[in-house]
Amino acid sequence: MNVIELIKKKRDRQILNRDEIFFLINDYTKGKIPDYQFSAFLMAAYLNGMNSEETTSITEAMLYSGKIIDLSTIEGVKVDKHSTGGVGDKTSLILAPIVSAAGVKVPMISGRGLGHSGGTLDKLESINGFRTDLNLARYKSVIKKTGAVMIGQTKSIAPADKLIYALRDVTSTVESIPLITGSIMSKKLAEGIDGLVLDIKTGSGAFMREFKDAKKLADSLIRTAKSFDKNVIGIITDMNQPLGNYIGNWLEVVESVKALQGKDIHDLMTVTHMLSGAMIYLGKKAESIEEGIEISKEMILSGKAFDKFLEIVKMQSGDTAILKDLSKYPKSKYSEKIVADKTAYLESVNNYEIGMAALELGAGRLTKEDVIDPKAGIIFHPKIGDRIKKGDVIANLFTDKKNKIESIKDRITQSLVFSNKQTSRPKLIKKIIS
Amino acid sequence: MNVIELIKKKRDRQILNRDEIFFLINDYTKGKIPDYQFSAFLMAAYLNGMNSEETTSITEAMLYSGKIIDLSTIEGVKVDKHSTGGVGDKTSLILAPIVSAAGVKVPMISGRGLGHSGGTLDKLESINGFRTDLNLARYKSVIKKTGAVMIGQTKSIAPADKLIYALRDVTSTVESIPLITGSIMSKKLAEGIDGLVLDIKTGSGAFMREFKDAKKLADSLIRTAKSFDKNVIGIITDMNQPLGNYIGNWLEVVESVKALQGKDIHDLMTVTHMLSGAMIYLGKKAESIEEGIEISKEMILSGKAFDKFLEIVKMQSGDTAILKDLSKYPKSKYSEKIVADKTAYLESVNNYEIGMAALELGAGRLTKEDVIDPKAGIIFHPKIGDRIKKGDVIANLFTDKKNKIESIKDRITQSLVFSNKQTSRPKLIKKIIS
Repeated sequence: MNVIELIKKKRDRQILNRDEIFFLINDYTKGKIPDYQFSAFLMAAYLNGMNSEETTSITEAMLYSGKIIDLSTIEGVKVDKHSTGGVGDKTSLILAPIVSAAGVKVPMISGRGLGHSGGTLDKLESINGFRTDLNLARYKSVIKKTGAVMIGQTKSIAPADKLIYALRDVTSTVESIPLITGSIMSKKLAEGIDGLVLDIKTGSGAFMREFKDAKKLADSLIRTAKSFDKNVIGIITDMNQPLGNYIGNWLEVVESVKALQGKDIHDLMTVTHMLSGAMIYLGKKAESIEEGIEISKEMILSGKAFDKFLEIVKMQSGDTAILKDLSKYPKSKYSEKIVADKTAYLESVNNYEIGMAALELGAGRLTKEDVIDPKAGIIFHPKIGDRIKKGDVIANLFTDKKNKIESIKDRITQSLVFSNKQTSRPKLIKKIIS
Repeated sequence: MNVIELIKKKRDRQILNRDEIFFLINDYTKGKIPDYQFSAFLMAAYLNGMNSEETTSITEAMLYSGKIIDLSTIEGVKVDKHSTGGVGDKTSLILAPIVSAAGVKVPMISGRGLGHSGGTLDKLESINGFRTDLNLARYKSVIKKTGAVMIGQTKSIAPADKLIYALRDVTSTVESIPLITGSIMSKKLAEGIDGLVLDIKTGSGAFMREFKDAKKLADSLIRTAKSFDKNVIGIITDMNQPLGNYIGNWLEVVESVKALQGKDIHDLMTVTHMLSGAMIYLGKKAESIEEGIEISKEMILSGKAFDKFLEIVKMQSGDTAILKDLSKYPKSKYSEKIVADKTAYLESVNNYEIGMAALELGAGRLTKEDVIDPKAGIIFHPKIGDRIKKGDVIANLFTDKKNKIESIKDRITQSLVFSNKQTSRPKLIKKIIS
């Protein structure tokens, strides 16, 4: 097989077979195919697409580039959730304790923040001492003892994805449904799970802004998961405004703790219970998603979910004392308010801009070398459809970077559209696909 | 400017402006843009195309990556010819002496063989002593004295093209009309010419097999040449069978000498006189192409063209004695015949296969490291439309590689299609565009 011929095939809209795709992925991962040839292939695949068989093959090749974790010695059904990323999306922190408290095993491998979108690992690491770099033996022992574990990508899982993702990032070949599918599914399939719930975000703060693109991605992910005999449910959810009100790493832990302690944050908990309900159903602890949702709510009301959260944090060396007294956490040097200068209805939010504003305050990274400030972020109060009165606080900003404050206040203000007439609220759960 | 954004623009079918294209070409040539990003850009440009302004910009950027030769101190109009390449295409060797004998300056910078297609430099170098690596001072002095010069690419001419071509070759991005246009025209414009005749080949032995693709390439080349204020004529000619009968480096010199001495090899001389006629016209030594063709024929009949050829060869350190007594050239170790096993009309030739057969006999290179055998090649006797009788010699093969002979006889035989009914001859000159 010849890499030049394979690039040519994809360039000419021909279908690559399984052997050809394995050759490309394996030889690239081994360093036998140089970056400049693989990037030409990626651009051809981006522009000409890949069919479902090719998508399954690329997923499989990436999966088998590394280890597949064997969780067969651990009792019970193992179910994970994956989100395509958004602003203020802290559902993983809430649903992992809920679902494991309900008796389903949750072996969760998460990522870091990417652009405007936050990352579960960064949020967890804002808890003093919390370790996300457990090795596989420790990973298994934590899940055996507590029923859930939340770690980062290890080197042995889908190494092809790490290499290919880095190349896609610098060659404008990120937003490709088959390539995104391969990247997500190769890592998830390596976790040793039985079932997977996918949260595909759509709207101004999502990578797939348009519903039709989110739907295509959902279909591709579901089809691929099924071809590996996994039980899967895809849920397309709204990302036209922050989920909940808190954006930033420690701020999101605070909101998650409040939610776990029973505070009903409408949009956040609607999405969380939907996802955890689906996980409990796939984990065979409910007969339906609806019953799963009821169980999920019970786990909050009974306090079992919060107890489980403390147990997970403790098992992963995190400081649980601070979670019981949130006020003891260090404060940002500067806090600022954005106040409404007139009375009006909130019509829309450029949620990407809100994510980028939080990043600039210190909650995310612009370059790989940037260090995250766990305290930094935004509390964003209104929801689309709310009537805001002149003088109401729209947002609180927390940062150690004084020089950024004015420009970020402008950035947030400019991302909001108001109306004199009543505006409608976006539907939170847009579609359930299984 | 940001390379990732520029790749994205071309990926998304947007138009790049002149500054953006100069940035890409300059920074790639300087090594500031890595191969893997440039190859992603090349694939996006291949698949999404470039408009005529972008094509002019890429040509200009590649041209200005090196020196433009100043021939203003040399009197007269300077005209060159470029062919897109074919099998047995030795027209450059015949027309450079014709056109310079007619008083037009011919500053010719040629290439080497590429795949199945022969190269003028390799042919000239089969003449003992012939130097194609003249520096620019010597290049100018030869053209000043003899009116013509035939050298190879120098490092100072369009260095961007050399780098980009090497990358295209290994990333399946060769056959792109805007990229081919930039590559050809940046080199030709650097020669310091006033006019250019383009021989765009089409048929089974051409890079553009289909007429419609040859026409598109011709249009792109002509439009680009005109945007640089050059006088240009494009001629689309047939490459469905070898041009003339001799294929291989020294063999093509032999056929060229015979032609210069007055032998009327129909197809070869029809195409040569058309090209040289157009060059003489652009060189302002004729009022029309037709008059140019008449002058071209006179240059042969009067012996002036052959004398000029000997003068050029001598000025470039070549052995002229051997050109006057061709039989003294060393012979291949092996010669073989292919003989017709039935009587029939020749219907078609897979001319690419004939070119590759000559290459395999030693006339070309499969890898950059291969050394050419100047003696090796094929004399291919019949023309499409000819009636061949059982026992007629179809081809003579010359090689030092005994082990190749049988498979190459098969390769040639399999590339021919015969018919019991009379077959038609392809039209030699398919279109003249100016």
